[in-house]
Order: sequence, then structure tokens, then C-alpha cells
Amino acid sequence: MKRLIAIVGGREASPELLEQATQVGRLIARSGFGLVCGGMGGIMEAAAKGCKEEGGLTVAILMQDDPQYANPYMDVVIPTGLGIARNLLVVRSGEAVIAIDGKYGTLSEIAYALQINKPVIGIKTWDVSEAIIKVNSAEEAIKEVLKVLP
Amino acid sequence: MKRLIAIVGGREASPELLEQATQVGRLIARSGFGLVCGGMGGIMEAAAKGCKEEGGLTVAILMQDDPQYANPYMDVVIPTGLGIARNLLVVRSGEAVIAIDGKYGTLSEIAYALQINKPVIGIKTWDVSEAIIKVNSAEEAIKEVLKVLP
Amino acid sequence: MKRLIAIVGGREASPELLEQATQVGRLIARSGFGLVCGGMGGIMEAAAKGCKEEGGLTVAILMQDDPQYANPYMDVVIPTGLGIARNLLVVRSGEAVIAIDGKYGTLSEIAYALQINKPVIGIKTWDVSEAIIKVNSAEEAIKEVLKVLP
Amino acid sequence: MKRLIAIVGGREASPELLEQATQVGRLIARSGFGLVCGGMGGIMEAAAKGCKEEGGLTVAILMQDDPQYANPYMDVVIPTGLGIARNLLVVRSGEAVIAIDGKYGTLSEIAYALQINKPVIGIKTWDVSEAIIKVNSAEEAIKEVLKVLP
Repeated sequence: MKRLIAIVGGREASPELLEQATQVGRLIARSGFGLVCGGMGGIMEAAAKGCKEEGGLTVAILMQDDPQYANPYMDVVIPTGLGIARNLLVVRSGEAVIAIDGKYGTLSEIAYALQINKPVIGIKTWDVSEAIIKVNSAEEAIKEVLKVLP
Repeated sequence: MKRLIAIVGGREASPELLEQATQVGRLIARSGFGLVCGGMGGIMEAAAKGCKEEGGLTVAILMQDDPQYANPYMDVVIPTGLGIARNLLVVRSGEAVIAIDGKYGTLSEIAYALQINKPVIGIKTWDVSEAIIKVNSAEEAIKEVLKVLP
Repeated sequence: MKRLIAIVGGREASPELLEQATQVGRLIARSGFGLVCGGMGGIMEAAAKGCKEEGGLTVAILMQDDPQYANPYMDVVIPTGLGIARNLLVVRSGEAVIAIDGKYGTLSEIAYALQINKPVIGIKTWDVSEAIIKVNSAEEAIKEVLKVLP
Repeated sequence: MKRLIAIVGGREASPELLEQATQVGRLIARSGFGLVCGGMGGIMEAAAKGCKEEGGLTVAILMQDDPQYANPYMDVVIPTGLGIARNLLVVRSGEAVIAIDGKYGTLSEIAYALQINKPVIGIKTWDVSEAIIKVNSAEEAIKEVLKVLP
């Protein structure tokens, strides 16, 4: 079974954070993991782009019922048609969750991740719990992922 | 169509907060609304109990696939079998959301409510956004509900 | 807890079948049950109308994320936003399922009902299993419901 | 984007049908497609095994909330926790659906597939619509898939 890391974050973000997301995606692939996300733009697309650059597997769990809404860097697309109820599925599909920036949708994903005891690593995102491992760079994020996963 | 107010909050709470929840339930009913919640114990049960005391309608959207998991104060029970993905359905079914205390599940509900632009009134709960109307009593909570709803 | 009967059937139907659905709704209410359905037009609306005529409680589990899509005879509206994944929730919320006419959506509901061992009573609908109790009128349908339920 | 074919069918089946399923899986992979299914035993496992033998990609959309319930031939596992509501997601994720044998769960998947206009190819399965392309072998099934897909 392919081990996946979930990436959650906003559909819009600053160039710096998008570059961080791309670097996170690259490091996920280089560490031998695949990436799962909501399949849309912004942080999700930037991270998937990085993962594909390094030959990693990318999985999109879409809100929509049509795969055409996925960004162009997704290998496997699950067009759920469940709307934002699919947020839970994104975090459940990863062994750990890396959250970058993001608004209320990202907050719902962080909350779900904490509720089901997934490790959450945060880069400039919601600071709602001491359980979130806060880091400042893609490199640190992956280092923490590797530390918390068996 | 019956107008519903969503109540979200933890399955465990202090006696004071449970009493607040019961009073919220009573005031929801007295204001002519019904109550929708996750149908379980703690804040949900306390609020439903108050609503029933005043003859209000109570709706449970359960995680489980069996109605027997509902607390004894629920009139209408939807046993979704969707697990915590049902959190979204609870907040969508209310015109406004009153959050009391609560842990990560409640946080996911607050996040969803904010994402879909539902008014959120909070009593001693997650303070994650200026959009949450913070109050200290059941009376104030209902006053705010009546203020924000058309 | 209010006992509910689920009604499934097409969004379009002949005048005769719509009248049957209305009569089913009336008899559900007269038998002391409430009605749960998908909340849309056709068979669902006709049955809900009948149930309301007799003062029964009606519950809509909508595909859409907005309660305004419900037909005008629904008391409690759950706007799931889950699309046709909500079909399962409709049949789970009823103690028995009455299927009238209907296309593939109705077939998915009958299949789910049979899978989870709900009694299914069918009026001119999909004949896919001997487990479906086939009847020809609203009166017979309710008679069978009362026979199979405790 | 990896093009996927959905396989639906029972958790138990005769040795002959399991072998058909494995052959379907092999031919899916040889035709350049990946396979998506519910990730459990029986027809799902047999088909995934065939797909892996030929180096194809396999995707499981599980009912459960834990990836450990997947059969050992699944590359990507989405542990939805949605129970049988996930049936819709399986058929939505494939460009076409091949149904082999199966009980009511499979019937719900066929019904959903027909409702959303996915091509359905059936091997000894529910004969509920002229829209189902009935075939007798794995080879014919793939031939029909290739005929109906762009």
C-alpha cells in the first residue's frame, strides 16, 4: 500500500507559501510517500506540482462530482460529489497531515485530523491546539513527519 | 418549514455548562424554533432536554446507522452511518449555530459553519474567529440568534 | 421518538401514481407515523402533501445544500449537500420503505434498503427481489407496513 | 490523470467468477487503465490481484475508517468511514463500471452508475436495465469498455 501524506491549505496563498507547498510536495515524494489533497488550486495544486516533479503519486479527493475540476497534477482523482463533507476523507487518507495557511475549510480539516488522532504539522496555519507541530519550512515539516510516523 | 437552530458541543461538560445548554434549549423552543444536533450525550442531550421541556421539536443527525444511539429527547432521528462526516449536516440544518464548550468535533462544526456563512454564537467555546459572536449566557445567545436571523 | 416511514419514487410520475402517493401519505399520518423522503417533486411531494393534509410530520433529506430546494410540504429539512449519496440516509431514516414507481435513483434506494434489511413495500416499482412486498394500492401498502413493523 | 475502471461485485463468489474477476483485472492493467473498487474481499480482491499481476494501479474506496480493512492488492486506500454510502464514490471514480455477480450492494452501485450515465458492463450480474451491456467473459468485458470509452 502506498503511504500517503495529506496536504491541506487554502485555494489562495502568497507566492512564498505556494513555494513552500511545492517544496513540501517535492520532499514528500523524495521521502517515498505519495500525496493526498482536495485536488483544487492554491496550496493543493502547488504541493501536487512539487510531488509530481519528483515522480511522486498524487491523489485528489474532490468536492465535485466531475474529475475535470482537479488541478493538472493529480494522478488519481476521486470525484466525490460530497462537497466539503469530503474534507474528512482527505485527512483520513493521509498518515499525517501537513497544513499550510488556509481558511475555514482548512480549519475543519485540522479539527478533524486532531479528532481522529492524526499527527498535524502546521506551516503558518491555524494555531488551535498544542497538538499541532508548528514549523517554519518545508524541510522542517517533512522532518517532523518522519519523526512521528512509524 | 420548521426553523431550526443547531446546537454543537461536547459529549462531556461541567454541570454549569450542561445547565446553560438546557436553558438554551428551552429558549429555542420558547422563541418558536426547533433544535437540531448530533443526537448524542452531554451538551447535545442537555439542550434537547430543555427544548422538549418547552414543547419544541428536536432533530438528531446521528453518526451511527442505528437510531438507538440517540439520546431520549430527540423527536426526529436521522441515523446517517456517516460517522463524523455528519458534523457538516448538523450545522447546515440550522439557520444559526450555538456552540457550547466542546472539543475537536465541535471545532470542526464551528469551522464548517463559518465556511458556509452560518451565524455562530459561542458560549465558552473555541475562539477561532472574530465572526463568532461570544456570549456568556443562554439568554444572550438567543438574543443574538434573534438579532442575526431574518 | 417519532416513527418514520420512508417514501421513495420518481420526480415525475403519472397522475394516478401521484394520487396513490398522496393517499399513502395520508394513511401514514393516520397510522400515527411521520414521513421521510428526498424532499423533491413528483412522488415525494405528492406523498408529503398527503401526510400534511392529515397533520403528519414530514422530513426531507435533500441532495442540495440549500433548504429552498425542498417541496412546500416538508416540515423538517436536512440540506445535506451530499448529492445522491443522501439516498442511503432516506431509507435509513424510515422503519420501512414504500417505493412507488421511480427510475435509477429509486432503484439505488431499494437496493440500499434491501442491503440493510429494511422492509420494502413496492407499488408499480422495480421488481428486483422477492423480498419486496408488491402491492397495488396505498391501502394495501400501509396494511403491509403495519404487518411487518413491531 | 490515471484513467480508472470501477469493479463492483460481491464479497463472496464462485471460483469461476473470482477467476473471471482476476482476468478482468489483468486486462484492465494491460489496456493501460487502473482499477478502483470497494477494497474488500471476493470479486474486489480477485480483480485487484489480477490488476497488480500486470503492474496496474489499484484504488480502494473503503467503507471503514481504517486502511487495514483493505485487501492486500490495493495501492491507494481511501478509508472513508462512510459505510455503504461510499458505493457512489466507487462508481463515480471509474470511467466505466464492470459488475460481476454481487448482491444488493452491487445493485446499489449499478443503479447509481446508471443514474449518473456511466457505462455499465455486466458479467452474470443484476439484469435490471437494457442499458447494461451483458457479456460472458473478461475478454468481452474489456472489449466493450474500450468500445464505449473515448
